Amino acid sequence: MKLVLASSSPRRIELMRFLKVKFEVRIPLNVNESKVRKVPEDVEELAYMKARSVMKSVDDVIIGADTVVVIDGEILGKPRDEMDARRMLYKLSDRWHEVYTGVCIMGNEWVERFNVRTSVKFAELSEKLVDFYLKTGEYRDKAGAYGIQELGALLVERIEGDFYNVVGFPLRRIWEVLERRGIWA
Amino acid sequence: MKLVLASSSPRRIELMRFLKVKFEVRIPLNVNESKVRKVPEDVEELAYMKARSVMKSVDDVIIGADTVVVIDGEILGKPRDEMDARRMLYKLSDRWHEVYTGVCIMGNEWVERFNVRTSVKFAELSEKLVDFYLKTGEYRDKAGAYGIQELGALLVERIEGDFYNVVGFPLRRIWEVLERRGIWA
Repeated sequence: MKLVLASSSPRRIELMRFLKVKFEVRIPLNVNESKVRKVPEDVEELAYMKARSVMKSVDDVIIGADTVVVIDGEILGKPRDEMDARRMLYKLSDRWHEVYTGVCIMGNEWVERFNVRTSVKFAELSEKLVDFYLKTGEYRDKAGAYGIQELGALLVERIEGDFYNVVGFPLRRIWEVLERRGIWA
Repeated sequence: MKLVLASSSPRRIELMRFLKVKFEVRIPLNVNESKVRKVPEDVEELAYMKARSVMKSVDDVIIGADTVVVIDGEILGKPRDEMDARRMLYKLSDRWHEVYTGVCIMGNEWVERFNVRTSVKFAELSEKLVDFYLKTGEYRDKAGAYGIQELGALLVERIEGDFYNVVGFPLRRIWEVLERRGIWA
């Protein structure tokens, strides 16, 4: 058995390390992330497509994931540029939004798919903080233009649900599948 | 002005780094942590005593903090040993508890004190997971015998409130004080 993470996200790689098991990273190819229109169905589907795209051997157990931020029915993916990121941060300021992560774990003859929602309340952001945050570049390649870790901790007032679902994926729920299938420890 | 963290906790030092400001670490002396009996008053008082114990110069701005875990009216501090840690983890299993952090920030002529509560729901812990967690030693020197980061992520199902309050202290609330007083950036 070879455990494989189908993601190039540094946050997800870091979270996988918490499990203290050996795993390999493979970058999913030809997966169009902008296709998410219906939540949570589409994030699960995208997680599935990412996982499937790196399947190489019958021994592989693959973990795929996809995260979006939803506010007012609008889906916020990764920002195109700094101006787009600024727009997203002001939109999120002083309000609750939802973070959905779809997960797909698959072996040769089985597939498990699920999604997890976490509610996040942003603080009221000052222009100074937004400028400072954008200057660090931490917004890049992140759904909703923020990460909840590092400086992003200053953007968030409170959450309801699984914190790690906001960071990258719901680590405990993934571990539960690996544990139940005898893949962990 | 010299910003000082009155704590030797590696988690709090790591959180301070998120702020991207210069600070110094001083270890509080002669502060008896087992004195916490009334929550949240006593965690604030302890935070104050820790901060005061490292005050050396009129230029110092000092941050002190103290965290406890409360369940069924019982205050869980740091475990005495592995057996005590095991008792605490089983007590927390499959239930909600409260994490209180008292914070004190003081300059030469001012003091700000407050406390923040976060609710944490533990997953139902298997013996295997408890054994594994205890073996890593991560329970040591942590209120309630767990940290929510690293492997501890597997113990927690969901939270309500500020995640970083559980890690070490409420980073955003501390930053708000520093920002308002012109100490940040």
